[in-house]
This record gives sequence, C-alpha cells and structure tokens, in this order.
Amino acid sequence: MDNVAERFADIVGRTNLLVGEMIPEDYAHDEALTAVPQPPAYLARPGTAEEVAALLLCASEHSVPVTARGSATGLSGAARPCPDGLVISFERMNAVLEIDTDNHVAVVQPGVTLSDLDEQTAAAGLSYTVYPGELSATVGGNVGTNAGGMRAVKYGVTRHNVLGLQAALPSGELIRTGGRISKISSGYDLTQLIIGSEGSLAIATEVIVKLHPRLPYGATVLAPFGTVEEGLRVVPKIIASGLGPHIVEYIDDRTLAAISDFIKLDLGIPETVRDTAAAYLMVALESRDKERLEADVEELAGLILDGGAMDGYVLDGAAARMLVEAREKSFWTAKAVGVDDIIDVVVPRNEMPRFLRRTQDLALAVGATVVGCGHAGDGNVHLGLFCPDAGKRKQLLTEIFAVGMELGGAISGEHGIGKTRSEYYLELEDPAKIALLRRIKASFDPAGILNPGILPADEG
Amino acid sequence: MDNVAERFADIVGRTNLLVGEMIPEDYAHDEALTAVPQPPAYLARPGTAEEVAALLLCASEHSVPVTARGSATGLSGAARPCPDGLVISFERMNAVLEIDTDNHVAVVQPGVTLSDLDEQTAAAGLSYTVYPGELSATVGGNVGTNAGGMRAVKYGVTRHNVLGLQAALPSGELIRTGGRISKISSGYDLTQLIIGSEGSLAIATEVIVKLHPRLPYGATVLAPFGTVEEGLRVVPKIIASGLGPHIVEYIDDRTLAAISDFIKLDLGIPETVRDTAAAYLMVALESRDKERLEADVEELAGLILDGGAMDGYVLDGAAARMLVEAREKSFWTAKAVGVDDIIDVVVPRNEMPRFLRRTQDLALAVGATVVGCGHAGDGNVHLGLFCPDAGKRKQLLTEIFAVGMELGGAISGEHGIGKTRSEYYLELEDPAKIALLRRIKASFDPAGILNPGILPADEG
Repeated sequence: MDNVAERFADIVGRTNLLVGEMIPEDYAHDEALTAVPQPPAYLARPGTAEEVAALLLCASEHSVPVTARGSATGLSGAARPCPDGLVISFERMNAVLEIDTDNHVAVVQPGVTLSDLDEQTAAAGLSYTVYPGELSATVGGNVGTNAGGMRAVKYGVTRHNVLGLQAALPSGELIRTGGRISKISSGYDLTQLIIGSEGSLAIATEVIVKLHPRLPYGATVLAPFGTVEEGLRVVPKIIASGLGPHIVEYIDDRTLAAISDFIKLDLGIPETVRDTAAAYLMVALESRDKERLEADVEELAGLILDGGAMDGYVLDGAAARMLVEAREKSFWTAKAVGVDDIIDVVVPRNEMPRFLRRTQDLALAVGATVVGCGHAGDGNVHLGLFCPDAGKRKQLLTEIFAVGMELGGAISGEHGIGKTRSEYYLELEDPAKIALLRRIKASFDPAGILNPGILPADEG
Repeated sequence: MDNVAERFADIVGRTNLLVGEMIPEDYAHDEALTAVPQPPAYLARPGTAEEVAALLLCASEHSVPVTARGSATGLSGAARPCPDGLVISFERMNAVLEIDTDNHVAVVQPGVTLSDLDEQTAAAGLSYTVYPGELSATVGGNVGTNAGGMRAVKYGVTRHNVLGLQAALPSGELIRTGGRISKISSGYDLTQLIIGSEGSLAIATEVIVKLHPRLPYGATVLAPFGTVEEGLRVVPKIIASGLGPHIVEYIDDRTLAAISDFIKLDLGIPETVRDTAAAYLMVALESRDKERLEADVEELAGLILDGGAMDGYVLDGAAARMLVEAREKSFWTAKAVGVDDIIDVVVPRNEMPRFLRRTQDLALAVGATVVGCGHAGDGNVHLGLFCPDAGKRKQLLTEIFAVGMELGGAISGEHGIGKTRSEYYLELEDPAKIALLRRIKASFDPAGILNPGILPADEG
C-alpha cells in the first residue's frame, strides 16, 4: 500500500480499504452501456459520515479523484471510477435510521436500497414514492442522479421527495441541509443543489426523505393506438381531468412486444389489434377506496376511448404488476436484444410527437433503428438506439440531444449526465451556464477532486 | 442626473428611470415591520429581460447595489433598498405570457400579481396553487422569498411549483434554467438555487410555473381544542389518512378572536366553547366530486373528534372563504393591534407543541406576549411578538430562533431571511454553511452587487 492508501486505511480500518488488483471487477463500472470499465486505485467502505468526511479531506490533500458509489445501477457512467481514483462505496452505510410517522419522513443512510426502504415503510403504511425501476438502487445513488421513474407524474422525482441531507464537503466538513420539514426560506437551498450533482459537489452521508400514505387500491389501463401521436394527445386530457394518475406511460409496439416476450407475459391483446397498433398508453390509478377507483377507471377509460384508442384493457392485479415491472426493467430487455445505447431525453409533454418524428428521421438518415417507450406524463422519452458504428452513433446522439434541447427539453430527464453524456452536454449547453456551473463547482470543490469527469475543468 | 443614472436611463428610457427625491416613498420599504425605510438612489422600471441584464452589467461596473422589487409585500425586508442603490421594479413586466394547457404550465413575467395569474388560470380550469395570502404579491417576489402559504401542505411552496426561469446575472448574461418539464437530470439545478435566494444570486426575468387542475368543490372544518397540543396531535393522523387536505392550520384562541373581530366574522361558535378553547384546528378539503367531498368531510370530522376536539364545525362556503381569507391576512390584524414583530419559524411538525411551550417560557421571562397561528401541516409557526423594548426583543428573537433550529427547524419557513433576519441567521447558522453560501454567492456575483444585505460579505 502506498502512503495515501495507508491514510485511507487509517480512516476506515484496514479491512475496509482495498487497493489495486484486490478490488473486485464490479467496482470498475455502473450499468451505462457505453462506458468502458475503469478500475479505481482505492476502494473505501466507510462506516460513518465522519469517515466519509475524513476520506474527502485526505483525497483533497493528495489530489485523489473521488467517485461515490451506491449499487452502481446508474445508466450514465456517473459511478465509473477515475484512474488513480478513490471509490467510496456506501455498502456498509445501508441502514434505515428512522421511520418518523409524525413527520412522515424516513431518515436513511445513503447505501440503503429502495427495496429495503420500501419494505420498512410498508410496515408503517407509508411509501417512498420514487420508483426508478431498479429497486436494488440506493437512495444515495438516486440523490446523485436525481432519479425519476414512472410515478414522477404524480409524486415528482427524487428532488421533490428529499427534504434534507447530511453531506461531506471536500474540505472535510460535514454540513446538514434542510430537515424534517417541507418549507424553508432560510439561505440558499443546498439540498436541491447537491441533488442531481452526481457526486461532483458534495457527498450525501444521510438523507431525509418524504413519505406518503400507501394507497391500497390500484388499477392499470392499457390502450392501443393507431399512431403514437394519437396516444400522446390524450395525455394532457388525462392530467387535466384531475384523476391524478401515478403512471402515464407510452410504449411503442416493438418495445411492448419485446418486453412481453422477455418476461413471457400474455396481455390477452387480440392479434388484429397487435398487428395494427403503433403504440400503447399505460395509465395507472390508485385510491384509498375501491369503489372510487372503479368509478375513476371507468372515467379514465372513457377519456382514452374518446381520444381515439382502438380499445382499452383494464389489467387485473397480477398482469398489471407484471407489465409495470416489465416496463420498469425495459432496460434489461433492451440490453438483452443487443441495443447499442439508450437515452432518456426529456421534452415538454406536448413536444413528444415532434421529438419522436424528428428522431426517427435522424435515425433513418444514418441507417439506425430507434425504438422505445417513455414517461408520457413527463415528456421523458426512453429510446434504444441500434447503431453499431460508434462514429455514426455519436453524430446521431448529438443531433437527437440538440433536437431535445431545441424543443425546450434536456439531454437527460432522469439518468443524469454522468461520464457518458458529459461531452454532449458541454458541447450543446449554453456556455454562460457551463461557466457558472464550473464556478459553483469550484465553490464546493476547489481542488476538483469530486467526480471530475462529470463537469471537467475548462481546458481552454 | 449623475453619470450612472444617465447610463441606466439609456437602458430603460428616461421616463422609466427616477433618481433621488423623484422616487416615491413607497419604494423605500416592503412590509417588514421592523425595517427602517431606506430610499434608493435610482429606481428603474425595465420593460424587457435584456434591459434587466443591461442594468445589472452597468451596476456591476459601477459597484451599485441592486435590489429587485415586485409588489414589496415581503415581510423580511428583502426588498428594502440599499443606500446609493438601484431598485429594479418589475411593475412594467407584469404579463402572463402564456397559459399552456398541454403542458400545464404558465409562462409569466416576474411582475405579474398572483391575483392576475389566478384570474387567467381560472379561465382555463387550472390553478397556480401557491397562495401566500397576499394576492397582490408578484410571482417574481415569490420566487425571491420561496413564498409558501396555506396550501403548501398539499401542493408545496414556490420552489415545488416553479419549473424554469430566465434569469439575469450580474455579468449581464441572461440564462434559461429548467423548462416546461418537471424532471431534468442535466447539470446542477440553477432554478432551485435561484429560488429563495432573495435576489442575491440572479434576478428572474421570466418564470415558468406549474398549474394544477382547479377542483370545484371545497369544505372547511373548524374544531376547537382544550389545548394547542391536543389539536396539533391530530395533524399527523389527518395526513396519514390520505384525505389530502390542502389547508391544515392551527389558530390560537386570542388570534381567532382578533381576526374574527377584525373582519366582523361571526363563526357561530357558542360562548361556552369560546371561553374554554385554547386553540382551533382549521382543515380544508377539496374534491372533483361533491359526494366524495361530503364523505371525506365526515371522515375528517370523525378523526378530529376522536382526537379530542370539543366540537367540529363544517363551515359553509361564505364563512369558510372569509375565515381562510382572514387567516391569510392575519398579518394585517396583527399590525392593526400594534404587534412589535412577527416571525415564521419552521420546525418539524411534531415539534410544534414543544416549540410553542418553550417560546411562551422565553417570552414570559422578558415580560413579552406571544400569540399566533400557523401552518400546522408544515410545522410553520406564525407568531406575533408584543415586546416594545428593542433590546429585549432582539434577545427574545435570538432565543426563539435558536430553539427552532435546535428542534431541527429554521428561522423562516416562508418569509425569508431578508435584511431583518440576516444578523440572526449569520449568528446562529453553521459557519461552514455560511462560508459555503458566500462562495456560492461569489460564483454568481463576484462584485457583490445583488442585494448585499441578505448575505453580507465576511467582515472578518
């Protein structure tokens, strides 16, 4: 062990510090499809916030780049280590510290998984409503990327459900932001600034999340449409109705076929419909009351049929759960069928048809295939790109991201910029904003040790 | 006119630039009770974002401090001008630019009032749900303070309902943040950083706000309790029920008597109840459906009576509206009866009884009287302090704020720090955080021209 490793080992204990080839291969990557694995030089598994802070101070002093790591289920390469870097893995800091039923919050360590949190909140009749699909993800990782998921249309994304943080700064200081409170007008909102910063400003060491009452009844309506546009046009009407759906997704015909096939799910859709539907709308409602839910489902089905759906299927409990789960895991389907990259551009909801048309045109022009699904309520489009040629793919990605931004959207709605999108972000985003973000980063991290690949220092 | 005034006049036009004694007295203050009026040196009324940006650049170059001003209904002195300073008043930039019913957003200029916005969204069956009470307030001012109000328990505060900004930087640059989208994971969240910064980081020149369906039916339940504690203990049960109230307030006996008297409202509460009730809970529900609302009100009343209420009054439309309005305007009641200061400390919801007890003890010790009401669902306590001696009042405020922070809360839940709370904030907040906030401010505003009294530079 080198001198720096000795210091890290003093902080976390010798058994919790691995170096070089002792570090398992799994720590070299996250789930980003296109990021080349990069083993770190050091892997530390701290047990306390104070240890995290001490690691950061030491890393600052020795100019060691630091990457925080939850379960590394991220899709943008934000948890890909730096060469000669330190990975801080939160696998030992994985406790739900408190379920506070008076204030309706949970206080958790960053390494807790969404499935553990879900289990423990369920016991209290409550729910942490951010469901980015992969329940082995950690809350800390979700804070880093500002993870979203299907229920965002009703409950918002991570940033709307995190009320406070304890965070370690590169200076070795620990700060607390926010609290068990939803409203504060006292100083700049550091909680919100740190959320979504992908470990490049500070590292969360404790998270206070908002909990909602867990509603007992739910139903899902699946509706085929002749064109994607028709399906998407119904969405504002559903939102305006006040029915308050917690899931509003669209899935194109090829994607639904692939995910149904992947999990062997027979949705009972007649072949004639399957042959002519171009896309499906999937809308889920939940309620405290069974009768109200039934009335709401009927109203929803009416809205959807009035909007031109070929039919409307109310899925029963098991089929609905399987479909939702399959949709959540559509990344794995895409990966299984050999997709070359996946993206999650977000645009204003009403720009989705135009964005999809322009994307198809751009793909056609370079001989690529693009299929997908998306959070129709949020304008967040998930596309799988089949385009093996790296050069063409880069060109296509640049063009697609540019279209998304031109339509008033952003490169990523929920996956994050990470290390795989950073070059596009730096190319396409307003230089005045990039310069401002760099100054903000320097105000937290003057030595530039925190996940430097996310927002690399200006080389010019 | 001096040289700087000439330059400002070149930017906004001579008729939109006033100097010195030409500036009406009203521009010297906001509604903060304890801030001494301070006339500015310059008053500019820009008509476009570009003019705002040009004003900031010019102010930067000449080290002129700048204070943005909406309707100046703020309660913390954030809109109090600086001596020799420039006030940028948004009275000419007061248009609703668009009500976008596809994406359920409104795009507005910062000077638009909440009442204008309410009128225009109502026509579309939608609602901007942030109601800080004073409807003559502007959206831009609300962005500055991160205004809250009674409906926050259901809909959140300003920061939860603003999706994007155009903002002018002291460099003269105009940036756009966010958009007509609720989820973005692409770069640091500048929207959230600017919201609540009280014009000390950047000045919003356009605001994209989220709109919700306007629900047609509403009812309000008023319930007297023998003690404040009993009333507050019911609140978590109401939240856990999933009934989703949009208003959950407590009002102490003296405050209810004062506001009823102020607006000549007879709530029909029997004298025996009025004589023994120490506090009232006021809970409002809304619904798309009349029958559901009635069932919900019954369930709510049951919860409240089970929780020990002396009675429960379902207020009819007119009385409910008057009471809600009176509660919203309780500041004016307090002002009319000669209150010496008002505060809006926020604590975790379940710490409100302890906070109130400790506040009463502290007040008693200096011979002061403290009465009030508050957003019981949010832990946001509004107190009127009767304590004419400025020295004692300062001591009492320091102690009360310290207790609020010790209980996991903050000095202000929705009024902001402004110029009247800055000294307390700097004294009581973690120095590591203050230092970080100052570095963040410098990353936006290196010359320190933007509302410098909010977060004054370190004198040490």
